[in-house]
Amino acid sequence: MEDKKTILETFENPNPNRDYVITHEAPEFTSLCPKTGQPDFANIILEYVPDELCVELKSYKFYLNSFRNDGIYFEALTNKITDDLVQILNPRWMRVTSEFNVRGGIASTIEVEYEKEIDLDEE
Amino acid sequence: MEDKKTILETFENPNPNRDYVITHEAPEFTSLCPKTGQPDFANIILEYVPDELCVELKSYKFYLNSFRNDGIYFEALTNKITDDLVQILNPRWMRVTSEFNVRGGIASTIEVEYEKEIDLDEE
Amino acid sequence: MEDKKTILETFENPNPNRDYVITHEAPEFTSLCPKTGQPDFANIILEYVPDELCVELKSYKFYLNSFRNDGIYFEALTNKITDDLVQILNPRWMRVTSEFNVRGGIASTIEVEYEKEIDLDEE
Amino acid sequence: MEDKKTILETFENPNPNRDYVITHEAPEFTSLCPKTGQPDFANIILEYVPDELCVELKSYKFYLNSFRNDGIYFEALTNKITDDLVQILNPRWMRVTSEFNVRGGIASTIEVEYEKEIDLDEE
Amino acid sequence: MEDKKTILETFENPNPNRDYVITHEAPEFTSLCPKTGQPDFANIILEYVPDELCVELKSYKFYLNSFRNDGIYFEALTNKITDDLVQILNPRWMRVTSEFNVRGGIASTIEVEYEKEIDLDEE
Amino acid sequence: MEDKKTILETFENPNPNRDYVITHEAPEFTSLCPKTGQPDFANIILEYVPDELCVELKSYKFYLNSFRNDGIYFEALTNKITDDLVQILNPRWMRVTSEFNVRGGIASTIEVEYEKEIDLDEE
Amino acid sequence: MEDKKTILETFENPNPNRDYVITHEAPEFTSLCPKTGQPDFANIILEYVPDELCVELKSYKFYLNSFRNDGIYFEALTNKITDDLVQILNPRWMRVTSEFNVRGGIASTIEVEYEKEIDLDEE
Amino acid sequence: MEDKKTILETFENPNPNRDYVITHEAPEFTSLCPKTGQPDFANIILEYVPDELCVELKSYKFYLNSFRNDGIYFEALTNKITDDLVQILNPRWMRVTSEFNVRGGIASTIEVEYEKEIDLDEE
Amino acid sequence: MEDKKTILETFENPNPNRDYVITHEAPEFTSLCPKTGQPDFANIILEYVPDELCVELKSYKFYLNSFRNDGIYFEALTNKITDDLVQILNPRWMRVTSEFNVRGGIASTIEVEYEKEIDLDEE
Amino acid sequence: MEDKKTILETFENPNPNRDYVITHEAPEFTSLCPKTGQPDFANIILEYVPDELCVELKSYKFYLNSFRNDGIYFEALTNKITDDLVQILNPRWMRVTSEFNVRGGIASTIEVEYEKEIDLDEE
Repeated sequence: MEDKKTILETFENPNPNRDYVITHEAPEFTSLCPKTGQPDFANIILEYVPDELCVELKSYKFYLNSFRNDGIYFEALTNKITDDLVQILNPRWMRVTSEFNVRGGIASTIEVEYEKEIDLDEE
Repeated sequence: MEDKKTILETFENPNPNRDYVITHEAPEFTSLCPKTGQPDFANIILEYVPDELCVELKSYKFYLNSFRNDGIYFEALTNKITDDLVQILNPRWMRVTSEFNVRGGIASTIEVEYEKEIDLDEE
Repeated sequence: MEDKKTILETFENPNPNRDYVITHEAPEFTSLCPKTGQPDFANIILEYVPDELCVELKSYKFYLNSFRNDGIYFEALTNKITDDLVQILNPRWMRVTSEFNVRGGIASTIEVEYEKEIDLDEE
Repeated sequence: MEDKKTILETFENPNPNRDYVITHEAPEFTSLCPKTGQPDFANIILEYVPDELCVELKSYKFYLNSFRNDGIYFEALTNKITDDLVQILNPRWMRVTSEFNVRGGIASTIEVEYEKEIDLDEE
Repeated sequence: MEDKKTILETFENPNPNRDYVITHEAPEFTSLCPKTGQPDFANIILEYVPDELCVELKSYKFYLNSFRNDGIYFEALTNKITDDLVQILNPRWMRVTSEFNVRGGIASTIEVEYEKEIDLDEE
Repeated sequence: MEDKKTILETFENPNPNRDYVITHEAPEFTSLCPKTGQPDFANIILEYVPDELCVELKSYKFYLNSFRNDGIYFEALTNKITDDLVQILNPRWMRVTSEFNVRGGIASTIEVEYEKEIDLDEE
Repeated sequence: MEDKKTILETFENPNPNRDYVITHEAPEFTSLCPKTGQPDFANIILEYVPDELCVELKSYKFYLNSFRNDGIYFEALTNKITDDLVQILNPRWMRVTSEFNVRGGIASTIEVEYEKEIDLDEE
Repeated sequence: MEDKKTILETFENPNPNRDYVITHEAPEFTSLCPKTGQPDFANIILEYVPDELCVELKSYKFYLNSFRNDGIYFEALTNKITDDLVQILNPRWMRVTSEFNVRGGIASTIEVEYEKEIDLDEE
Repeated sequence: MEDKKTILETFENPNPNRDYVITHEAPEFTSLCPKTGQPDFANIILEYVPDELCVELKSYKFYLNSFRNDGIYFEALTNKITDDLVQILNPRWMRVTSEFNVRGGIASTIEVEYEKEIDLDEE
Repeated sequence: MEDKKTILETFENPNPNRDYVITHEAPEFTSLCPKTGQPDFANIILEYVPDELCVELKSYKFYLNSFRNDGIYFEALTNKITDDLVQILNPRWMRVTSEFNVRGGIASTIEVEYEKEIDLDEE
């Protein structure tokens, strides 16, 4: 799974002089439960304030689709998506929220937030 | 596309001595994808605190309609609408939020905020 | 239209020693467009913290109904309602929000807030 | 109506060492309009942080039911419920919100908040 | 009921270097009313920021199911779930919210929050 | 309770030559449980095809309000409302539906239909 | 009020050889209560199968707006709208449904249906 | 499980001369999965046209609660509830619908209908 | 506009021996008002029972998009879509429903149905 | 794909003497688009009246999951599911409805119905 982030493509932020929020909501995410091999389903919400780069939408879709037949836990998945996107985009701020469908009568959500350190001091 | 902001008309703010919020929500926005030429659809939410000028509603509708056959990216569009309205209205505060319909299973939202600098110091 | 505020009646705040919020939501407001003469429809939300006086509900209804055949712009209307009620009630805080129905594919909302100055210093 | 608060029963807060919020929402409240004698209907939302005492749920229901044939104004009612409960429970914090059904095309809400003074200093 | 927390199993937090929020919503909770023996139903929402440990989802489900035939009050239950999970997980922050179904025309919610003391100072 | 139907007033059907449906939905009905004396709440939906007479709306409201302090079972109530209205209005068709709030975790609805016999043959 | 139907304009049905349904839903209807003079509000739903003529939408809007300051009962209004439109359009089938806002805690709906007699025999 | 129907109590239908529909919706049903022993949850909707007898609501609640710790399949449960109620009430018509919560990503509903044979011939 | 139906492509019905219903709902339709040139927006719902041919989804999307800059009335548009699809697909049954956005405070829907004549006799 | 129906397991209908409806709604179905290889998502609703056999729920889930990495068109898929289940269960009646997520701005639904022939004659 380490090479997934090579799927992600970027384009130059058209307005890097301004802080603004981009949100991509992907309600069609699916991966496999690493214990049972059964499919999991989630709504993945990506929010970020771009710095120099924005993620290209189609490549982001292919990136999410690449988890289709991987076994991965909820917590690890949400942290990995955040880490991959932070490395590729180097954003000013980012939040990834994974809302998983009910399993065993329980619905789970994982919410990971990232904030660039130096920017904060300068602001 | 540079001349679009000449479409926008204004009228005098009837209560410039008071900060208050005007919101115009336009769920019928459509433009074209610059890559594929296929239509995009969005709900454009404009919120602002007027200073001396308010935007005339019908001219704002014509301004939004003028993008109908233009190819433009989500991020560029939302920043351009903000820039055009800030130049014409010189408002105390403004936020433009574009909520785009699902494309490739993903719904995107861009949210741009502007705040007049000098006003903030005086307040 | 200057005499409308004489329609408004008041009663003594039964608990002036405590700050509390009164909300009256009136989804049946209608006036006329000053340009076209065609009817406009709005939901008027009045929120306030009373000082010595509360607005009597039936007189407030008659006050709103008195705009039925007046031509008036959204921004002017919301500021006028706020001004009339502030003059009559002298409240500690007030917010008037007018949510207008879609016109030309666009829904507009005007939100005006008032805060009594001296009270703020004392608090 | 002065004796209503004797209806209220209490039990000891099982966790007085911790601030936590208890909410009781009662959508079946009804009283009479003091002017017309016609019935009023409301949803009463009680939120509080208990100190030593919690309100017993059944007694609270009987307390609310006791207003069934009383004529009382919205503002007075909400303040009275707050005062009665504060006297009986001596809570760290309390909010009572009464959402009244539409009358004459207008829906009214009254929201009263109470905060114990000494606790705030110590916190 | 003292041994219930032995049902809870844990796994190592895969990203302890980062504060992030895990939410498990369990709408199928049921226990018994200690007074009447009749069943109570609730939606239990667990939110927490893990430190070294996360709760294993299936064991958490079994833990909640273990209350099925216990008589326990709303307030005591919500505090006990919080205490058990805090002891087992030692989280950086936790909130447990129990939304109980209507009883006698009244719906009750209990919301308990916990915050680790030392972490706060260091942050 | 036998005299309640004298509260009901009527007016002449303005279009008796045509079959058309009149619906009055009253979500604010309340009566008492004959066993426990505790209040019951219901939404009463009256639908009818008038013959010579229509029910006057305000008198119908007073008729429903007259049950406020009566103890009466769901089934008996819905049949009584139907019988009273059929006697007073002699309609071509009528349906009365009472949707009662949850009691003991169960929501009940009673639906009674009436059809004038001779009209059916003639039609 | 007799001349209102002269406001209505028509255009030729572009497909008279086929039965199809046209629906116009007008949620902004308002008239006056003939008893109290207070405003009434309704959602007017017009459904019809055109024969040779269709109603022109803007003229239909002006027709509905012409009731703005008329006092008229719910039942009479719905029958009058049906009669006017049947006379002007001579449709194969028509239904007019008026859904009135809550008055005195009761929401009323009037539903009038018309069917051309000869067409039915021929079909 | 054979004796459960002795829990059910009845009262005389107050209007046996008229066919009318009684509905009791019980969203708090729970039983156990016979395979795994894990809890199942369902919304049980009972609709019937009474003949001589109606089911007493509280006894019906106790009847449903008696399945709390029984292992029983969806299909068998819904047929058993129907059979028990038909035997006790001998109704003119009955339908029992069990809407089960999601299990393994699938929500199941079972709908059983009964109609008294002789009544149908006579009608 | 006569050549639009050449945009439509088809594929062979994989199960022509069975009547089944295919529905395509397209909420992103837009054309122009022939009077004002201003954009109209609609949700187009196509339902049909295929005979030998099904419409290829992407070509159907391009067909709908081809109206983007055409001026056409609601009634004519819905009949034209039906006629074009009937000619190309020769279906056993078809219904086209166009739900147009609010214009001048009125929302319009046009519903056209087609049924193949010979099939009906044989069935 | 021909062997998929061997995944399906059955159990004996506990009440074959009675016609009743079993519904299984599976909102987590996913397969691949045969043209693009991109994932499709659907809600599959299975309704049937069993004869001698019912489908075992877990095996039905595995059957649906087995399409995860197959390329198959909407129309073919829905007909195949129906055919497989009819062969295995030989039901009295069955309907399979596949509601597919938006693709290219269009949402598609396929609805296939089956009815056993001889049963109909005997009924």
